Parts: sequence; structure tokens; C-alpha cells
Amino acid sequence: MKHFTTVHDVHDVHALVAEAIALKQNPFAHRDAGLNKTLGLFFMNPSLRTRLSTQKAAQLLGMNVLAMNMDKDGWALELEDGAVMNGSKVEHIREAAAVLGQYCDIIGLRSFPELHDRATDYSEHTFVKFLHHCKTPVLSLESATLHPLQSLADLITIQSHAVKPKPKVVLTWAPHVKALPQAVANSFAEWILAAEMDLTIAHPPGMELCADYTAGATITHNQDEALADADFVYVKNWSSSNDYGKTYDDASWMLTPGKLHNAPDAKIMHCLPVRRDVELSAALLDSNRSLVTEQAANRVFAAMAVLKRMLEGLPQTQNAMQHETVNAL
Amino acid sequence: MKHFTTVHDVHDVHALVAEAIALKQNPFAHRDAGLNKTLGLFFMNPSLRTRLSTQKAAQLLGMNVLAMNMDKDGWALELEDGAVMNGSKVEHIREAAAVLGQYCDIIGLRSFPELHDRATDYSEHTFVKFLHHCKTPVLSLESATLHPLQSLADLITIQSHAVKPKPKVVLTWAPHVKALPQAVANSFAEWILAAEMDLTIAHPPGMELCADYTAGATITHNQDEALADADFVYVKNWSSSNDYGKTYDDASWMLTPGKLHNAPDAKIMHCLPVRRDVELSAALLDSNRSLVTEQAANRVFAAMAVLKRMLEGLPQTQNAMQHETVNAL
Amino acid sequence: MKHFTTVHDVHDVHALVAEAIALKQNPFAHRDAGLNKTLGLFFMNPSLRTRLSTQKAAQLLGMNVLAMNMDKDGWALELEDGAVMNGSKVEHIREAAAVLGQYCDIIGLRSFPELHDRATDYSEHTFVKFLHHCKTPVLSLESATLHPLQSLADLITIQSHAVKPKPKVVLTWAPHVKALPQAVANSFAEWILAAEMDLTIAHPPGMELCADYTAGATITHNQDEALADADFVYVKNWSSSNDYGKTYDDASWMLTPGKLHNAPDAKIMHCLPVRRDVELSAALLDSNRSLVTEQAANRVFAAMAVLKRMLEGLPQTQNAMQHETVNAL
Repeated sequence: MKHFTTVHDVHDVHALVAEAIALKQNPFAHRDAGLNKTLGLFFMNPSLRTRLSTQKAAQLLGMNVLAMNMDKDGWALELEDGAVMNGSKVEHIREAAAVLGQYCDIIGLRSFPELHDRATDYSEHTFVKFLHHCKTPVLSLESATLHPLQSLADLITIQSHAVKPKPKVVLTWAPHVKALPQAVANSFAEWILAAEMDLTIAHPPGMELCADYTAGATITHNQDEALADADFVYVKNWSSSNDYGKTYDDASWMLTPGKLHNAPDAKIMHCLPVRRDVELSAALLDSNRSLVTEQAANRVFAAMAVLKRMLEGLPQTQNAMQHETVNAL
Repeated sequence: MKHFTTVHDVHDVHALVAEAIALKQNPFAHRDAGLNKTLGLFFMNPSLRTRLSTQKAAQLLGMNVLAMNMDKDGWALELEDGAVMNGSKVEHIREAAAVLGQYCDIIGLRSFPELHDRATDYSEHTFVKFLHHCKTPVLSLESATLHPLQSLADLITIQSHAVKPKPKVVLTWAPHVKALPQAVANSFAEWILAAEMDLTIAHPPGMELCADYTAGATITHNQDEALADADFVYVKNWSSSNDYGKTYDDASWMLTPGKLHNAPDAKIMHCLPVRRDVELSAALLDSNRSLVTEQAANRVFAAMAVLKRMLEGLPQTQNAMQHETVNAL
Repeated sequence: MKHFTTVHDVHDVHALVAEAIALKQNPFAHRDAGLNKTLGLFFMNPSLRTRLSTQKAAQLLGMNVLAMNMDKDGWALELEDGAVMNGSKVEHIREAAAVLGQYCDIIGLRSFPELHDRATDYSEHTFVKFLHHCKTPVLSLESATLHPLQSLADLITIQSHAVKPKPKVVLTWAPHVKALPQAVANSFAEWILAAEMDLTIAHPPGMELCADYTAGATITHNQDEALADADFVYVKNWSSSNDYGKTYDDASWMLTPGKLHNAPDAKIMHCLPVRRDVELSAALLDSNRSLVTEQAANRVFAAMAVLKRMLEGLPQTQNAMQHETVNAL
């Protein structure tokens, strides 16, 4: 694997999940896999789980880690080619990405959407430019439209609890107080469908996800119908992808125990952070139906499996420090 | 040792001090003690000495470290059970603590008091909830009411300089420009008394410390009397624990060389940072009576001794990565 | 080498450049050079390249790293001796430096000038005090007047591309939107002249650099004349060192391809971050004349060579943890 930005970078989803589960059972067996390799983690937006789990995964593989909060450290990047840089942006993404590529063997990047202009966000404007200019394998720590490390962890969690070969998985829209990206939902759909599970997506009218990610899923506005016989219920808010970035205000979509009357064995999932009693009732989060902590724990093994594959994909002779020819006199 | 949040977590204070002093003499002898173990350092408030010394201690023990500024990174935690999370708090301490517990074998937590409501702060509201939900050994990096790593470092420093078996130790209140917690003072009293030293506490009327920590100490409002024949003088400001959080304005309590006329050999201590010529005169800080730098240096060995004990206390088969049963299909 | 704050700390510049180039060819050969040694990186100002490259260099040498943003973490230091600390500064540089010196074997420090008072900045007020009180070898990560790690990386880059023994190197002033320090320019001049290369400095009237650093260079206000037959053109803005901190507004000094008509083989250099089409035309940055990415990559080997020399210069028996005598009772 060279880059990891979508499920399409993965040759065999089931094999990757199996490798992650094996790593969970034996996390210290590959301490030399990343020897002398450097992982850069660059955050244009806040991160807790992703930062810690990816850093831990890299440590378990013996990699060196360089981390930087591009947002907090006020290193505002210019993204537009041709810009005359006489404003507040101190560096162009061309130079920043090229330099970071020189310091790292693999680069993890987080860059959220702005939720203003759909075309810009869905072109993965920032990610694509960064990836082009850094000339180094890139690991998505969540892009404008996708969050593949989260989805892989979700799939590991489902596989670990599924009691039938093709479980019924339901992704149900949830209320929220803020406009959130569609990335987690898009990505979850993409991965569950790639794993050939039975996916139903329930959301209010107008909150359709981008069809590129949902082909093959059953889509409904009837939450009650969707939840019937569910094995796994994934709760997630997203803002509109049509009336781009708009939120929807309907508290009746909050998941409660009562709504699961036809799904007595359904496990509850959420990527966290979760707004208790807004998205999802506290009673469900605190019940033994909830897999949310385990999902977060599985982020480590998702990142480990992906980093291990990316390390294996590095050219044998690659040495991030020798991109440039040295012509010593 | 499982948790380390107060002197009561320590079976034998003298043995712990002796171990820290042995580690100082031979700091590189235990580089494998923390192999494959992860220490998380989570700061809800700023930190310089505690952050650096604890991180260094972990590195000397071969641990991996994950550090995060919860405050700076704007990850505002909801603490109240039952809260409907429709405000500015993005995550509940229940989920945050549970997830961090999954990533770490030992968690260091710093959480200052708010100094608004004594009952809340003295219940160690945040610490207790975090400790309960993370299900992982917790190391205090300073809580609302105590700072045991500082106190252990102070005790190491005193032991290293004491020329009699039971030195006279004086804790004297100092002026300051801000309202500070009582944690360092409470904790110092608790540890000095646990070590069975002779402790005198001098403070202005109204600035009593909580009696839970001071039973056995001589307490006086007469600074001059307190300082007579002192072997060690610990200078520290704290805000009122009765008229909770109120400050007291009396520059005459600043420690100066002249006040030590009856304590010619007294060593001067302070946990730092110190306000020069406000809490303590610059002349004393710059004299060879001052132990403040050595106290700060001893923070490394205090943290090492505690972490080593906590590592020894981990279940032999414990593996933070395997809290969840893996039911791979 | 004990400290590294200027070219004068280097016995033989050519030997240091040669060592850096050898390290670039074989970066993993000295993984034990820094075993059990701790590098502290303390930033009073923002940093991207310097932070990442120095951290990477330390990792390649097997050192432990403790990093802290003094500016971001709001740890405002009092610099003035004799100050009564009743204001907003929480700690004096005397205590802060002394404590950091206890935690580290080598300390990297970044401290920019304020550009208000020339005498203060050029006395290296902050750096000198820090160095005095920390009692530990200090590595400059850019001081008020000099940036020697950048200059060493620049020299490595020039040596790697030079096709004649004494190349013509031109430092040309560039327009900018902000008032920048003179440090990179001062330091570049100092190092190029120490390496006995042919240096021409071109700048508008009034933008003279401090003569202490430029003795031996050809200095001109005629950019066109300066650029003729150049082998390397270093583009850099600086504010006035006479009318201290004043900027100069003349877009005609921006370097463009057309200006290089008499220097067909000239390579273009810049320390980054660069304002595209303000300091330097995008066309030049995107051409194969540009060495800017390679300069940034060479920062790792500059830092490695310097750290390796500083590690070799540490007393054999030195142990940062044992500065204080332990008198265990």
C-alpha cells in the first residue's frame, strides 16, 4: 500500500481487518517494522483519538514520530496556486508539503472541510495538493470527505462481535448542535459496503449522503423500519451534503433504548466524541450494548495494520534523508 | 502501588525516598522497566517542571509517552452526569477517560481546582470521576487539593541535606499576586508528617490549611517564632481554604535574609515558579541556602520511583491493548 | 564543541560541512551517539523546520527529546535582574534556565529579537542570560541576531552543488510584508565568509547589515551588477539594522527570472518560509534552479553534525541528573 486515503487504496479489506485483529492479539511482535522510519503527524484541525492512537501505533512499530499542530501553531498555509503572498499566509502548501516530505517516510495529515463550498471540499483540495507536493506516502487522519482509519477500526469492531457472516448494519443520522462534516458517515458506508455487509442508512429528508459512497445500501427516511433486526447501529450526525453544510433540527432522531424494541441484540456504535442525550441517550452509552470504547481502542490496531502495510510498501532502498543527491566536492 | 494521588497510596514513605535517591545515583539502570508500556500525560492546566520531569522519568524507564494538553487543544470536557450535551463541551469525561484508559498502561493527570466552591474542589470531583472511568492506574500530576510528586521531590531534597534525624521543617505562607491552590501546601504537610519530621506551619490569621493534612504540625501566626532554629524553610503562597479562594495582602510575610537571624543554617525551599521579591527575596534565591533548583531536579527521581512502583504493580499479564476480548470470526 | 550559537564556536567550518555530508550519506550509523542523553528544545517563538529537523536529528542520534513551546504555553519569563515580580511574568529566566539545565544534557533555544531596541537585541540579552543560568551546553535554534543551524545547512547545500572551488555567492535583499529579523542574513554572511567563498551582498540604501558579520564581502546597492555571474543567489528579506526594525517598500527588488540574464547557471536559495511573488517569483521557486527544498532537508544533517560534536564535547562522566550531590542519609 502506498497511500491510505480511502478504502480503494486497500487490495483486500477482509485481509486488512484480519491483520489488525492479529496485531491486537500480539501488539509487540513488530517492534522493528518501523526501525529508522519517521512518521510525521500534521494536524490542520484538533484531534484526540486519532492523534493518540496513531502515535501509539507508530511507537508499537518502532517508528520515530514528529507531530505538529499546524492550526495551533498558527502556520497558516496558502493553498492557491498563483497567489501573490502579501497577506496573512506565511507559507505556501507547495513548500510546506515538499519540506515535510523530506523529513518523513510516511506523513499523516488531518484536514477538515470548510463546509462552505461543496465542490472545493469534495475535490479534496487541500489533501490532493499536499499529497502531490510532498512526494511521500500519505496516511489520512481524516480528510474533507473521508475518515478511513475510523472506518477500519469500526469494521474491526464489527468483525469482533458479529455472530453471523453478513450482519445487518444500520447507519442512523443523529441530531447535533453544530454543523459536522460527512466524512465519518461517507467513509463508514464505503467500508461496510466494501466488506459486503448488509447496510441500511436512515436519515431525515434532505440529509442524503453523496451517492458515490452509498451505492448498494438500503436508504430510508424511516428510522424505525431501518432499526428492525439490526445487529449493529452506528449513530452519527452529519450536515447536509446537498444544501451544503446546513444542519437539521429534529430531536426525534436521537437514538434511545425504546427505539431498539425490534433489535434486541443490536450493538451501539459511535466514533466519539459524542454529545450525550443529544445524539444518543446516555442510557445506551452506559449499557453493555455500547461498543464505543472498544471502537476507540481499535483505532490503535487499525493504524498499526495500515502503517505496517505502508512500511512494507516503501521502496527497500528508500531513505527519506536521501531524496536529494549529494554531490560532495 | 496502583494509583498515586496521595501519600496514603505509599506503603513506606522512607523506602520510596530511598529508592528515588538510589535512582538518582544510577538513573540508567532500569531502561527496560517500562518496555512496551505507555504513559499518558494529560494536562487540563499548564505545566513546565511536572511535564518535563515526568516525561524524562518515563524515558529513563523505557516507557512510551503520549502527551496532550486538554486545555490548550480546547477539548472541553463535560463533568456532570446526566448533562444534556447541547452546549460547548464536546465530550463527557466518561468517554474521554475510558478511551484514554484504553491507550495507556498508566495515566498522569493534572487538574487544578477552580477555587470557587470548596466542597467541589475538595471532593476531587474531576480526579475521582476520571480515575473511576479510565479503569487504569492514575498518577497525579497535581489535583485540586494535592501535589504528591512535588512533595516526594521535596522530601528527597530534605533527606539529601538533613544533618539530624528529625530536622525542623517550617512551611511559611508567602504573599502573591494571584489566588493559588492549597495543593502544594496541603501535600507538603501530609508528606512531612508521614515522614515523621518536626513540622511548623506559619501563616496569617484566616489562612489555615485544611486540618485533614496538618494534624501533628505546630501551627502559628507568628512567623518569627516559627523560623527560629529551622533546618528547612519551605516558602509557599496559598489562597484561603475557609473563605474559599480569597487572597491575603500582607507584604510583611515575604521571606528575607533578616528573618533568618535565628536560623543561620536554614535551607530555603520553594516548588517554583517563584515570584522574586514578592514571595521570597531574590537575595535568598541567589544564595547558597537555596535548594530550589535541586528540588526541581529531584522531580525526575520522584517520578521515576513512583512510575517504577506503579509498573511493578501492573498485573503481569496486563496489556492495555487487550482490555477488550477479541472475538475474531 | 560546547555551545553552538555562532560560526565562531566551530573550529573548522569545512570539516563540519564534510561531516554533515557524510551523515547524510549514512544517517543511521550513529544511533547510539546520544544514548541516555536528553535534548531539550525550548521555543519562545514559532518554528516548523527547525523544530522538526532538530528533533529528527536527535532521534537519529538516539537522544531523548523534551520539547516545549514557552510562548504558546504562556510561560512568560521575566528577564530583568532585580525585578519585583508582581506583574504578569510567572517565572524568572534565572530559575527557568537553571531547572531546564537540570533536565537536559543539551538545550536548544529559540528566541527572536523584539526589533524595538537594537542594543538590547544585538547584546543577545535573552540568549546570554539563559546560557549563563542553565549551566548546560546550548544549541541556537535562532537567536536575536544569528541562525547558525540554517547557515550550516545553506553551506552544506552550496558545497553539494558547487562546480568550482570558490563559487560566487550573492545575498540579495527581498521585499516582504512584515518586519523580519536580520538573523538569517547576518548568519549567512558570517558562515559564507568563514568558508572563504566569494560573497556579494546587494540591498537597497539604508538596509546595511551589521558590519561585524560582513567584513570581506562586496556590498552594493546595484542588484543587477551583483547578480552577474552568480553561482548561488540567496534571497532574503530583513528589516533595517540602522533605523532599527524599519521596513523598506520597493517591489522592484523581488527576484525574477529576467534578472538572472547574466547568471544562467545560478541556483536559487531561500531559508523558507517564502512569500511567493513577493520576495521571489513563483516561476523561480518552481524551476529546477531552486534549491529551497534541499536546503530544508539539509537542516537535519546540519543539526546532526552539530549535536554529534556537542555530544562528543560533553564531559565523559557528565550526567545531567547528577549535577547535585546526593547526600543520602
